Amino acid sequence: MNSVFHRILQWSAVVLLAVVLPVTPGWAQDLLPSWNDGLAKKTIVEYVGKVTKEGGPDFVSQGERVAVFDNDGTLWSEKPVYFQLLFAIDRVKVLAPKHPEWKTNQPFKAVLENDMETLVESGMRGLVELVMTTHSGMTTEEFEKIVSDWIATAKHPRFQRHYTELVFQPMLELLAYLRANGFKTFIVSGGGIEFMRPWTESVYGIPPEQVVGSSIKTKFEMRNGRPVLARLPEVNFIDDKAGKPVGINQHIGSRPIAGFGNSDGDLQMLQWTAAGKGARFMLIVHHTDEEREWAYDRESHVGRLDKALDEAKKHGWTVVDMKRDWRRIFAFEK
Amino acid sequence: MNSVFHRILQWSAVVLLAVVLPVTPGWAQDLLPSWNDGLAKKTIVEYVGKVTKEGGPDFVSQGERVAVFDNDGTLWSEKPVYFQLLFAIDRVKVLAPKHPEWKTNQPFKAVLENDMETLVESGMRGLVELVMTTHSGMTTEEFEKIVSDWIATAKHPRFQRHYTELVFQPMLELLAYLRANGFKTFIVSGGGIEFMRPWTESVYGIPPEQVVGSSIKTKFEMRNGRPVLARLPEVNFIDDKAGKPVGINQHIGSRPIAGFGNSDGDLQMLQWTAAGKGARFMLIVHHTDEEREWAYDRESHVGRLDKALDEAKKHGWTVVDMKRDWRRIFAFEK
Repeated sequence: MNSVFHRILQWSAVVLLAVVLPVTPGWAQDLLPSWNDGLAKKTIVEYVGKVTKEGGPDFVSQGERVAVFDNDGTLWSEKPVYFQLLFAIDRVKVLAPKHPEWKTNQPFKAVLENDMETLVESGMRGLVELVMTTHSGMTTEEFEKIVSDWIATAKHPRFQRHYTELVFQPMLELLAYLRANGFKTFIVSGGGIEFMRPWTESVYGIPPEQVVGSSIKTKFEMRNGRPVLARLPEVNFIDDKAGKPVGINQHIGSRPIAGFGNSDGDLQMLQWTAAGKGARFMLIVHHTDEEREWAYDRESHVGRLDKALDEAKKHGWTVVDMKRDWRRIFAFEK
Repeated sequence: MNSVFHRILQWSAVVLLAVVLPVTPGWAQDLLPSWNDGLAKKTIVEYVGKVTKEGGPDFVSQGERVAVFDNDGTLWSEKPVYFQLLFAIDRVKVLAPKHPEWKTNQPFKAVLENDMETLVESGMRGLVELVMTTHSGMTTEEFEKIVSDWIATAKHPRFQRHYTELVFQPMLELLAYLRANGFKTFIVSGGGIEFMRPWTESVYGIPPEQVVGSSIKTKFEMRNGRPVLARLPEVNFIDDKAGKPVGINQHIGSRPIAGFGNSDGDLQMLQWTAAGKGARFMLIVHHTDEEREWAYDRESHVGRLDKALDEAKKHGWTVVDMKRDWRRIFAFEK
């Protein structure tokens, strides 16, 4: 055999491996190394095997393999409070010199005095005011830069790590595993759509157009002959609870076959996913590891998991016990 | 050489061709056979060559190759009126037996009497009422079925062809050509998002999540234990004119590098596309062929092209002269 043939054979092997390997079931399980062998991992792998088996009774064509993931508490942590709220708090501190009135006006006074109790007491109204003030009044481009700068530098109070290091390694593997099996992966989060988009592609491999979230209104304007989108202090859409199926329909336009969440805010998204025809997969991440991450469910103010846990048990949805099912939670763990 | 080697060589050839060919420039021009050789085709091919040339000064990475297309008048015809309005008219006729009051109430009376003049006189208010009445009051699933049934059966008054046959063959080729060169193709239309999604994937190769359009509000409800999204008679978003950049930002989350339109309704989308950094491509389809399709621009009520034509000339955007630039408009032409 001469050397040209040799080379062609080598090339064909490389190309064929690249094409064939990702969809070979035996290989598949090794794509989830941070998952302990157990019921959760087993049901995931079985489900993916089922819907990707051509000619099988549960086969789903590639374009219809849509999987939706909540973000806060499902793909990354959400304690002590949603990271976006910590972003808003940091913004208030940065902007404070230009707003002397904040020294006496709530909820800004509480933020500047690190008085979380009073901030929480300001309730939804206070939080909305905090978010609106810090998330509007600039163009979309300016906001993208503000978020990018913050996410690249700010650190989590407990772990002293960047927030993007607090993503769950098993879920990163799951996202990649699903994509290797022809799934389109979407984020469907109560968080701000433009707070997530600047970093979801590099962190999760999810491009901006596959991110669904809450939003404020924007307005097209010409400024000095240059078009901008101005961010207005007005809610456009809240992508939480009953809003999630609405957001899914609006952005994705087809019903997911698999849904992943961790709190009651994800219940309607999981119900909507479950109610479609054919084989469905619903999973809830249950935070049970206060040592490596946090342990909370029915009584938690952030990420409360109560009704959705009952529904999961009732309908046989997969519940991940973080402590038991995840060999590793964060990539930085030893 | 034995037969196993033979087979492997054949396979490797097939695989390599599939991988290599779509990005080979020489091959590219043959993907646009319905375009006459001329300036429009030349600028398209040159632009695509430029942004896909790795290491070149205008190279754009694959994830950022976002192209946006208007639908009515850009991908399919829009005369005598937007096809979605013809759908609404057909729905009024189907629903009329259950609405005896329509015999006397406008704009329904005009529709039932085929009195287009009075219908047009009812203005935007009459048209909105017509669309709301025919597009709401059912679930999203029910509406999808209604649209799918109509699009599969209804015929265009002039051509007596299904509406999906009135798509422009050169634009189908352009969509496929861009995708073969690593572009993501999106529709950004003033038309109803849920009116388009049932058929855009099979007709244009554009999946539902890459369709942006106008919408009415929907509401998540449990009906007999089953979740549905009810379509409400309330406008959610108008994806036209200054709304198009807003819709692009909301759904796509990054700025397109190429934009394709045909009317003043697309002007802001093209301005938004043009204002980004790096090499940009803006194209306007000018309807100049009354024999094969229609000829209209500055004076037309549907698809008026006036300001955008001036802007195109001013900024050197590509203007397609349908009569001159398109060898074939519809696939059914001889």
